Amino acid sequence: MPYKLRPGRMYMMPTHFGPASGPRQGPEGQRFDCQDTPRATSYSVSFLTRAEQLDALLPAGFRLAGEPLVTVTVSCLTEIEWLAGRGYNTLGVSFPAEYAGRRDRARGPFLAVLWENLADPILTGREQLGFSKIYCAIPPPVILNGETRCAADWLGFTFMDMCLTDMATVPTTEAEGNAAADKARVEAPRDGAENEHHAWMTGTLHYKYIPRTGEWGSADAEYAVLTPSAAPNRRVTAQWNGRGSVRFHRAAWRDLPTQYHIVNAFEELEQVAFRGASIVETVGGKDLSDQRILS
Amino acid sequence: MPYKLRPGRMYMMPTHFGPASGPRQGPEGQRFDCQDTPRATSYSVSFLTRAEQLDALLPAGFRLAGEPLVTVTVSCLTEIEWLAGRGYNTLGVSFPAEYAGRRDRARGPFLAVLWENLADPILTGREQLGFSKIYCAIPPPVILNGETRCAADWLGFTFMDMCLTDMATVPTTEAEGNAAADKARVEAPRDGAENEHHAWMTGTLHYKYIPRTGEWGSADAEYAVLTPSAAPNRRVTAQWNGRGSVRFHRAAWRDLPTQYHIVNAFEELEQVAFRGASIVETVGGKDLSDQRILS
Amino acid sequence: MPYKLRPGRMYMMPTHFGPASGPRQGPEGQRFDCQDTPRATSYSVSFLTRAEQLDALLPAGFRLAGEPLVTVTVSCLTEIEWLAGRGYNTLGVSFPAEYAGRRDRARGPFLAVLWENLADPILTGREQLGFSKIYCAIPPPVILNGETRCAADWLGFTFMDMCLTDMATVPTTEAEGNAAADKARVEAPRDGAENEHHAWMTGTLHYKYIPRTGEWGSADAEYAVLTPSAAPNRRVTAQWNGRGSVRFHRAAWRDLPTQYHIVNAFEELEQVAFRGASIVETVGGKDLSDQRILS
Amino acid sequence: MPYKLRPGRMYMMPTHFGPASGPRQGPEGQRFDCQDTPRATSYSVSFLTRAEQLDALLPAGFRLAGEPLVTVTVSCLTEIEWLAGRGYNTLGVSFPAEYAGRRDRARGPFLAVLWENLADPILTGREQLGFSKIYCAIPPPVILNGETRCAADWLGFTFMDMCLTDMATVPTTEAEGNAAADKARVEAPRDGAENEHHAWMTGTLHYKYIPRTGEWGSADAEYAVLTPSAAPNRRVTAQWNGRGSVRFHRAAWRDLPTQYHIVNAFEELEQVAFRGASIVETVGGKDLSDQRILS
Repeated sequence: MPYKLRPGRMYMMPTHFGPASGPRQGPEGQRFDCQDTPRATSYSVSFLTRAEQLDALLPAGFRLAGEPLVTVTVSCLTEIEWLAGRGYNTLGVSFPAEYAGRRDRARGPFLAVLWENLADPILTGREQLGFSKIYCAIPPPVILNGETRCAADWLGFTFMDMCLTDMATVPTTEAEGNAAADKARVEAPRDGAENEHHAWMTGTLHYKYIPRTGEWGSADAEYAVLTPSAAPNRRVTAQWNGRGSVRFHRAAWRDLPTQYHIVNAFEELEQVAFRGASIVETVGGKDLSDQRILS
Repeated sequence: MPYKLRPGRMYMMPTHFGPASGPRQGPEGQRFDCQDTPRATSYSVSFLTRAEQLDALLPAGFRLAGEPLVTVTVSCLTEIEWLAGRGYNTLGVSFPAEYAGRRDRARGPFLAVLWENLADPILTGREQLGFSKIYCAIPPPVILNGETRCAADWLGFTFMDMCLTDMATVPTTEAEGNAAADKARVEAPRDGAENEHHAWMTGTLHYKYIPRTGEWGSADAEYAVLTPSAAPNRRVTAQWNGRGSVRFHRAAWRDLPTQYHIVNAFEELEQVAFRGASIVETVGGKDLSDQRILS
Repeated sequence: MPYKLRPGRMYMMPTHFGPASGPRQGPEGQRFDCQDTPRATSYSVSFLTRAEQLDALLPAGFRLAGEPLVTVTVSCLTEIEWLAGRGYNTLGVSFPAEYAGRRDRARGPFLAVLWENLADPILTGREQLGFSKIYCAIPPPVILNGETRCAADWLGFTFMDMCLTDMATVPTTEAEGNAAADKARVEAPRDGAENEHHAWMTGTLHYKYIPRTGEWGSADAEYAVLTPSAAPNRRVTAQWNGRGSVRFHRAAWRDLPTQYHIVNAFEELEQVAFRGASIVETVGGKDLSDQRILS
Repeated sequence: MPYKLRPGRMYMMPTHFGPASGPRQGPEGQRFDCQDTPRATSYSVSFLTRAEQLDALLPAGFRLAGEPLVTVTVSCLTEIEWLAGRGYNTLGVSFPAEYAGRRDRARGPFLAVLWENLADPILTGREQLGFSKIYCAIPPPVILNGETRCAADWLGFTFMDMCLTDMATVPTTEAEGNAAADKARVEAPRDGAENEHHAWMTGTLHYKYIPRTGEWGSADAEYAVLTPSAAPNRRVTAQWNGRGSVRFHRAAWRDLPTQYHIVNAFEELEQVAFRGASIVETVGGKDLSDQRILS
């Protein structure tokens, strides 16, 4: 007797061993409330680039929203409940964009790519959520004489270096306020937009694409997705602001045979001006089960 | 100006940086002929189990074909051209099955799961091919006093141990013949099957499943797929046969929070009898662009 | 012209490239003051065992001092200045002992072994300091539902698991006091000892041994050493106390060919009673240049 | 009762758990004959530099012998019996030298440094043998389109790249002959040397140095050592010769805080001409228990 998929349960390949156990479905099918975990420390550096360079990285239906400001963020996550208390690190690159579909309108950071140093969340993130997650090594930050440095490499080829300096503590209440302000800025409607018929959703924007087997060049799935911005359980517990810089290193195909084109696109972005750096510590989050397709 | 996907080119997330560079599409869009590469050494152990235990691991449309013989294979691949000459290791579990769809009929080893120790081929394998690939660490085999041992772990939890002993060289021409015979056995039609209207395809069987974002429990893609058995460029350069054993180790959710159910299913398989072991060295292969949906 | 060693500078193999750069001598020969770095979080579990089992692990000149209490400590160090801001993890096993030499008398924890997950501090620690450092992997602690778990493995063989539960915050001033009390207890003179002629030094005890090349079985160096307890720059910034357990896993030679005898000695220690656990966060330390031979 | 060291047995720190188990002493005190193991594949590139640059890297008592020819060798070892069948990789830098002590005279490659990617052989090699072993990561060679590339990094900083091309098979008997010729060349006595009173020993030259604890700048041990060239069990099973290049990358202290001075010394060597490359596969070896002090 072949098995049948249980209705209402989430599955991933291999489906043969029962429902998947992952971020949005625990071993007994339960949810994780992400109340007091995970813990995260995020290191971000932003720089201004040229708008047309970012436009060229946006899929159909998207456009740049506001300043062409690229933010590169390394995050170190620990105490992740769905990983039974383990952690992993991420490296994301995003810039403000908006999406207008037939029905939906949404605005927020467009997460062009998210490297992670563990395969398990890469698989759930790509397939369940439509995050553009790929793999690299992300060693712990190196801290010396007030400077914090983060780096990322793929099998030994270091393709990103980030440096944060002159970091000054931000009072926590202010930090929470800043977070709200940041959100407001990126989510601010364009002039006149408030009069539009459809309300703008806010959150992180992605574009999901799954190729169709054997029919090379066509897709099983291809759609814009949104991570709604609401995260009521996430609290900022400490924040530092300061100056920073980030550099991507040009790669030959043989250096990064699966990622050279991604890294080189970032290396080619003109860095008109650096726009500050931050270190943010948070507790709590959400399971992203509110992730949704934009249509 | 948002970008457009180039027709006829293969894409993977993130799609924003141009066509994907991977096993079936090189940096300029070219194919890899897999003539003299990659090199592989594969360590296999087989055991007989109970048919009903394997039946329960088969998706709809599949059934066990012949003896309930499970084969566990560790492969060490090097000189992989699409990875610019790097390598990686795999751990697969398969058993003979056949698929009967509305139109297609196919027979061969059903690859229930394939662990790999590098994320890049996991992503292309899952999304492009529908292989049930997941991640684990697979250290190089340990060879002592004529015994070869392979193991696999996820973040330090060793879930599989394999031991091969009394390995005797098989003359190479015989090795090639054995490979053909193995293929024939698993691919032999059932009694009377030769009279059926539709020809049986042969190859490795898989079941692709990609969840749909936000509509939890439903799928973007769900279909059987086949890796046709033909691999004209693959030559066996050396083979040893002997005795072997393999053991999966029971895992709690906290040991393997994303894979405990997979490992435990294998641990629960009754090992009625071990059925020999082999070490096979090969050169060449194929890019698997003949992977196809079974319908 | 062959090179000459520069007087007054510290050297390590290879000596051919100039003075060593390490914990006690920076790139220009300077010292590191360890004022605001490194940061450390230490996870300790203690258990009572049988005195004769610990006695058997002491070199000539040493004896057990007080209760046969074994403390196993995992420490995660970051922001280490001599490593240019990087960190590493350690796993130590110690018990209270005292040393009486011809001239010196010293008392404190006897550090029977200290595993570290980075080779560089292992080499400086063994050769410069006489610490019994050896290598293993020490992943970051796993924290789930109020339980903290630490583990250690060598090339995939997990030989130690530690679990800390019910951890309650200790007010910081009390934490500092406890640290002093701990120190006092282990360093307390035996009855009547205060009347002895020679003052007792306090600190961590070690036994340095370097074999002599080619004269197998004889030694280039063999002497007791002391890490004096004074560490004025080290501040406890947070502490939690609670319950804990620790287990060493029996190893065959083939599991741990260079360490099986060490791990098995700990596995054989009777665990009469567990005696609590602690998590301690500290800032600052010292460069251990006060390490000295006991004679 | 404290323990006593057993006479005639080899010890390493920690000495408290019984005799060491390592390359020259197995778990029951037995030797390893290295008859059919280990297996090794070695990738070597040589270049001519300026004699005075090499002279400056030689300790007192040594001098350059013959051409200032630097050989950089990456070796991949497997099936190492004392590691219960595991393997590791090494990266060595050597050049021809001779040593004249009060009594001994020896000639052969001076092994200035030997990086290894596993701590256990580093410790036995340094302390028992006086090899200048230090740690780095040495990934498996990458082979693409007839080019073989090796690299080495320390915590992500790649400090060495080697490339071998146009490799042509050397008939095995010739390979064995070449090995003998190489040996003879480096070991050839200087003009007139054959008349000297003392016979010249041949083998690999090293300089052992162990610092003395607390008396910083002085040494517990400091002497020249020799690995005699005889290795009757070592057979060359295959060899390829061709062209090659090697490059060391300049490092700042913060890149390689314990090794920058070593790497930079190699980076500063003028590369007057490359002198060929080889890939050599061998089986068998010796346990190096004939390692001896030169006095």
